[in-house]
Amino acid sequence: MQFYSYFINKMIYSIRDLENRINDAIKKIPLDLSPQALYDPIRYVLSSDGKRLRPILTLMATNLFSDDVSLSLSPAVGIEIFHNFTLLHDDLMDRADMRRGNPTVHQLWGNNAAILSGDAMLIQAYTYIADVPLHLLPDVLSLFSKTAMEVCQGQQYDMDFEKRRDVTEAEYMEMIRLKTAVLIACSLKIGAMLGKASSLDSDLLYQFGIHIGMAFQLKDDLLDVYGDTKTFGKNIGGDIVCNKKTFLLIKALENSNASQRKELDKWLTAKDVDSTTKINAVKNIYDELNLKAISENLIEKYYLSALDCFSNLPVASARKNELLVLVDNLMQRHK
Amino acid sequence: MQFYSYFINKMIYSIRDLENRINDAIKKIPLDLSPQALYDPIRYVLSSDGKRLRPILTLMATNLFSDDVSLSLSPAVGIEIFHNFTLLHDDLMDRADMRRGNPTVHQLWGNNAAILSGDAMLIQAYTYIADVPLHLLPDVLSLFSKTAMEVCQGQQYDMDFEKRRDVTEAEYMEMIRLKTAVLIACSLKIGAMLGKASSLDSDLLYQFGIHIGMAFQLKDDLLDVYGDTKTFGKNIGGDIVCNKKTFLLIKALENSNASQRKELDKWLTAKDVDSTTKINAVKNIYDELNLKAISENLIEKYYLSALDCFSNLPVASARKNELLVLVDNLMQRHK
Repeated sequence: MQFYSYFINKMIYSIRDLENRINDAIKKIPLDLSPQALYDPIRYVLSSDGKRLRPILTLMATNLFSDDVSLSLSPAVGIEIFHNFTLLHDDLMDRADMRRGNPTVHQLWGNNAAILSGDAMLIQAYTYIADVPLHLLPDVLSLFSKTAMEVCQGQQYDMDFEKRRDVTEAEYMEMIRLKTAVLIACSLKIGAMLGKASSLDSDLLYQFGIHIGMAFQLKDDLLDVYGDTKTFGKNIGGDIVCNKKTFLLIKALENSNASQRKELDKWLTAKDVDSTTKINAVKNIYDELNLKAISENLIEKYYLSALDCFSNLPVASARKNELLVLVDNLMQRHK
Repeated sequence: MQFYSYFINKMIYSIRDLENRINDAIKKIPLDLSPQALYDPIRYVLSSDGKRLRPILTLMATNLFSDDVSLSLSPAVGIEIFHNFTLLHDDLMDRADMRRGNPTVHQLWGNNAAILSGDAMLIQAYTYIADVPLHLLPDVLSLFSKTAMEVCQGQQYDMDFEKRRDVTEAEYMEMIRLKTAVLIACSLKIGAMLGKASSLDSDLLYQFGIHIGMAFQLKDDLLDVYGDTKTFGKNIGGDIVCNKKTFLLIKALENSNASQRKELDKWLTAKDVDSTTKINAVKNIYDELNLKAISENLIEKYYLSALDCFSNLPVASARKNELLVLVDNLMQRHK
């Protein structure tokens, strides 16, 4: 197995290399412990087929500044544990039955297991996050705790929005910044810090991460409606079925004329309706309002802002390439 | 307000002084934040009328070695936040309606609020725990994370035991060590560490805390059945009503003769029975088996072991007095 390639005498790790490193490290987390009912759900969640996006970003950020990506392996694992903890508790709160094609923890083990195993994962996340050189520990910890709290705030806003029909675009943007973007930014910044980047460069990567995170979530919203049915992991239109306040729905409520608004309101309050009929009807309004293009333009805007940040980073372009490929893949994905 | 008394030229803080300090510090936690639905439950839980036992122990442990109890104020607050987080999630998992005479969070705000606000509290706990001098940070963090994980393990064992009728005394003792004793021990040890105690003395206080914690939990079990109805915060017999595997029930299942066991089994499986009738019947078996005295003897044994640990601590007895008074209060309490 080739873990690196030589490039102007430096080690640049490929996405695949880093993913393997993360998965190997996750396999080494001691989870074969008692009580089984606490650890089985954790093992189940962590062994599932995730993208490992955030820890890969951490290692890549380290690799921008250092040949030794193992410097940030432990906090990268901590961030992945944290991310999976949020999915576990979010799925319970959203009563989601499936995640990545598998039944969710509360479906398999019940609500209490989902609560308690999630709590244990959050604690475990901290254990891995804290495994950094002493002089960086306070800053890494405080960034992580700040981020974790923001993710909770984002989740709360998301739940609050379910009960409202007057959510503004600005409120929505702030919600996805908290729920999604800050963790991606934090993953990158911690990687940079451990790669001994200057605080200026670390902050630049944080900003890059915020823009990427916003684009990433907007893309997710878009794919739920306009994704490739065959390759998209979730069922198309899931957000429409459960009236989720996505960018598309918020813009539709904002931009619709009287008859479109009446139609939207009808579907938002309709009970016992056929999912496909509802999805097609709402999608039809989205099409009329040109929301696919509006959404794509906004994604492009965030993507370009991200690239602009990135171009200001004083790092050789050979070192930057893998991260650009990864981000481009995220933006071009159809699922 | 008098915050200390001079005693052979040293500052020794009274229980009341320390409780005030804790409550003042808790009032200063920034919780008047958005989204309200996230922070309101946290404010509710932290402003409720708790004993503040654990953070007081932390400050007292510091005061054994130092005149400056403010050294450990922040981690003491972190421990109290953590303890209240566990109560919040435990009450949700146990479907408890009331806590300290007030409705529980999930009763007032729903299950999702209880989950997410609890998560936020765990993160907040870490923020306060991490606010210690840099050279102590790794040890304090790793003790806290180890303890927090053990508390989760204890809660899981407790839930596992609900489904079993063959729980042994040894299993029960291990469960309460994890669920209750280690956090009391951790509170004391962190206080000692911040008071610049030697690692030998810190460990001695940890052991002291384990013994006190075991005695404390056994006393709780006992008070549920034999407590003073007027002063005990919970309803007498609550554990009996819900078949909770307490020390008393486990010993009863172990020590009962055939007819007593048959009677016990009847009550453990009975449905739609009058609570008072069930409580009296089960209590009657406990009385026949002399479980009050057996339990009191065991509590005394742990208490004496604790005092033995404490006597080995090379600290002037004037400094030890307040902690001994507090522990004696805990052991003599009728509620």
